[in-house]
Amino acid sequence: MSATRARLSRPPLSGSEWFAVELDPDEGTVVVLDQRRLPDEEHYERLRSPDEVRRAIADMVVRGAPAIGIAAAYALVLQARAERGDARAFLLAMGIAGRMLAAARPTAVNLQWAVARMARVAAEVAHRPPAVRAERIQLEAEAIHREDVAACRAIGVLGAADLPDGAVVLTHCNAGALATGGYGTALGVVRAARDAGKRVRVLATETRPYLQGARLTAWELQRDGIEVEVVPDGAAAVVLAAGEVHRVLVGADRVARNGDVANKVGTYGLAVLARAHEVPFAVAAPTSTLDMATPTGADIPIEQRSREEIALVAGRRIVPDGVPCRHPAFDVTPARLIDVLYTERGALRPARGETPETLRRK
Amino acid sequence: MSATRARLSRPPLSGSEWFAVELDPDEGTVVVLDQRRLPDEEHYERLRSPDEVRRAIADMVVRGAPAIGIAAAYALVLQARAERGDARAFLLAMGIAGRMLAAARPTAVNLQWAVARMARVAAEVAHRPPAVRAERIQLEAEAIHREDVAACRAIGVLGAADLPDGAVVLTHCNAGALATGGYGTALGVVRAARDAGKRVRVLATETRPYLQGARLTAWELQRDGIEVEVVPDGAAAVVLAAGEVHRVLVGADRVARNGDVANKVGTYGLAVLARAHEVPFAVAAPTSTLDMATPTGADIPIEQRSREEIALVAGRRIVPDGVPCRHPAFDVTPARLIDVLYTERGALRPARGETPETLRRK
Repeated sequence: MSATRARLSRPPLSGSEWFAVELDPDEGTVVVLDQRRLPDEEHYERLRSPDEVRRAIADMVVRGAPAIGIAAAYALVLQARAERGDARAFLLAMGIAGRMLAAARPTAVNLQWAVARMARVAAEVAHRPPAVRAERIQLEAEAIHREDVAACRAIGVLGAADLPDGAVVLTHCNAGALATGGYGTALGVVRAARDAGKRVRVLATETRPYLQGARLTAWELQRDGIEVEVVPDGAAAVVLAAGEVHRVLVGADRVARNGDVANKVGTYGLAVLARAHEVPFAVAAPTSTLDMATPTGADIPIEQRSREEIALVAGRRIVPDGVPCRHPAFDVTPARLIDVLYTERGALRPARGETPETLRRK
Repeated sequence: MSATRARLSRPPLSGSEWFAVELDPDEGTVVVLDQRRLPDEEHYERLRSPDEVRRAIADMVVRGAPAIGIAAAYALVLQARAERGDARAFLLAMGIAGRMLAAARPTAVNLQWAVARMARVAAEVAHRPPAVRAERIQLEAEAIHREDVAACRAIGVLGAADLPDGAVVLTHCNAGALATGGYGTALGVVRAARDAGKRVRVLATETRPYLQGARLTAWELQRDGIEVEVVPDGAAAVVLAAGEVHRVLVGADRVARNGDVANKVGTYGLAVLARAHEVPFAVAAPTSTLDMATPTGADIPIEQRSREEIALVAGRRIVPDGVPCRHPAFDVTPARLIDVLYTERGALRPARGETPETLRRK
C-alpha cells in the first residue's frame, strides 16, 4: 500500500498514527485521510480553507458523523485565524462559514452540533483581539475532538462489558476510528473488548455503494490486528440465520428524541433481520449524535446522493445509461428494533421505551 | 454500446434477437452472450467443445439455472457430433462430458436435470449410426430449450394474473430472458403483465457481488422498454417499508421436495423483509427446477465462490489484501416464507404447506 504519512507538527489528538481528521496548528491546515482512496492508498490531504473542508465533507473524503463534526470545527479554526477584522466582521465571517459547513451534508446532526457549539464560543470571544479569539476557537475545536475520543473510549468500555469472550459482531458501514475523532463508536466497543483481553471477531457488511465496510472497516481492523471478514450486504441474513453472530453493532448519524436512529442505508434492514433471528441489535453513538430538536425518525432529513455513486464502480459502468438508481444515503431504524444504545453517558434500551431524555434523568 | 451480433444460421429459439444461449447447428457451435461484459458490450462467444461450454458455465459467461441447463444440453450435442465410434464409445464419451458439465456448478439442479435427460436419450439412440444419433440428441436439446421458453411464457401468464395494473415488482438477481431459454421466469411474469396491457414497474436490487440486478436485469428490461430502477441491496428494506412494492418476485436455482427454495444469495433476507412488511413473496420457476430427490433446503449444496469475486470490482481492489471474504453464491428460503411458487404446471402456496408433490396431484 502506498502511504503518504501525515507528518503533523504535534502528536495526533486521535491517539493513533493514522486518523480521519486532525488540525496541524503550526501549518494552519486541516489534515484529512482521503477515505475514497482506501484500502489502496493511505493518502492525507491538507485543507487550507473552510471551503476546502466543506468540499471534503460533501465529497466524502472525510465521512462519519463525529468525524465530519470535528472537521467542521477545525474548518472554523482556519476561518478564525484568517479573520483579522472587528467583532462584527469576525462574527459575520464565522457565521457564513458555519452555515456553509453545516449544509455540506444534511443527515448527521454532529455537523450542525459542532458548528453551533463553535458559534457560541465565537460569540463569547468576538470582542477579543484576533490572536486571542483564534486561540480560544482552536481550543474549543480541540476540545470537541478530545471529548469525542474520550466518548468513544467510554462507549467502548460500556459496550464491551456486554460482549462475551469469543464474541462475533456483525457491523455495517464504518463506525470506527475513521468515522470519529479516534477509536470509533461501534468499532470502539470491539477495540475495548480486545483491550479487555476478550477474543472478538468482526463480520463487516460491504455497504454498497461506498463500500465503507469492505474498504474502511476491514482496513482499520486489519491494521489493529482484529480479525475481520467481509460479507456482501445480501449475505448478512444468511450469517444471522446461521446463529454465529452475538450481536449486530452499528453507529448512528442522528438519534431522534424518541430513540429512532438514522444511520447508513442498510441499517434498518439489518435491524429487522436481527430481530427476526433473535440477535440483539445495538447502536453506539456519542451524545453529540442525539438530537432533541428532532421528534422522530420521520423528521430526520435523509440525504439523497447521486446516481453516479451507484452506477459507476472504479470508473466502470455497472448500470445501463438511462436506467435510474435510487440512492438514499441513510435509513431510519425505529426505536422498537434497537435493543441497546450505548453513549458515553450510559446505555439506553430504546426497544423498552427508553429515550435520550431517559439518559438526561440518569 | 458495442454489439457483436450473433448472426445465427437460423432464427433463435429464444424468440428474441438477443439471448443467453443458442445452438448454431450449421456451424456446430454453442453461442452464448458473455454476460460478464454487460451492460457495456453485447458480445457473443462461439463455444466449440463441451469443455468450452463447461468453462463458460463455471466462469458465469452464461448463468441462470434454466440457461445453464440448456447450455449443457447443447454442449452434449457438440459431443454427440464429435463422437464417431460405436455405441460403447459414444456412451462413454457422452457420460464423461455429462458428468463434467453437471459438476460445473453445484446448486442449480437444472444443470443435472438437463444432463440426465440427455443421458436417457443417448442410451436410447447409442446403437444408431453417428449422424442419426447426433440428430436425435440435437432434437432433445432443442426440445429442452423450446420447452423452457414455453414454460416461461406459461409461468408469465399465471403470475401476471396476480399483478394489478400499475404493479411495482421488486426482484433480485436476474431471473429474466438472460437466465433462461428466453422470456424469463420472474421477469417473464413482468413481461406477461406488460403484454396483457398492464402497467408494471420493476425495482431491481443490485445483487452484489456479480451485480446481476444492476447489470443484467436493468439491461434486459430497458431493452424491452419496461420501466426499471436499480436499488442497492441494503436499500431494499427501505423500499419495502415505504409501501410502494406490490410483491417481491424472484427465480430459483433449486426447489426442494418440501418447498424450500435455493436462489441467489440475498433472496432469503428479502423474503424475511417481505414478510415483516406484509408484502407477498413469490418465486417463479419451471418444473425443471423442482428437485424431488432433495428433501429440504438444508440438503441443497450451496456453492461457495472465490474471494476475488468480492474483493475485486472492475479490477479495483475494494477489500484489503489478507482480509477474508465470505461468498456463498446462494441461500435457502424456507417454504414458510414463500407465499406463491409459479410453475408452468400451476401455482403452489408453500407458506400454506403446499409442496411440489401437491403440484403432481393437481
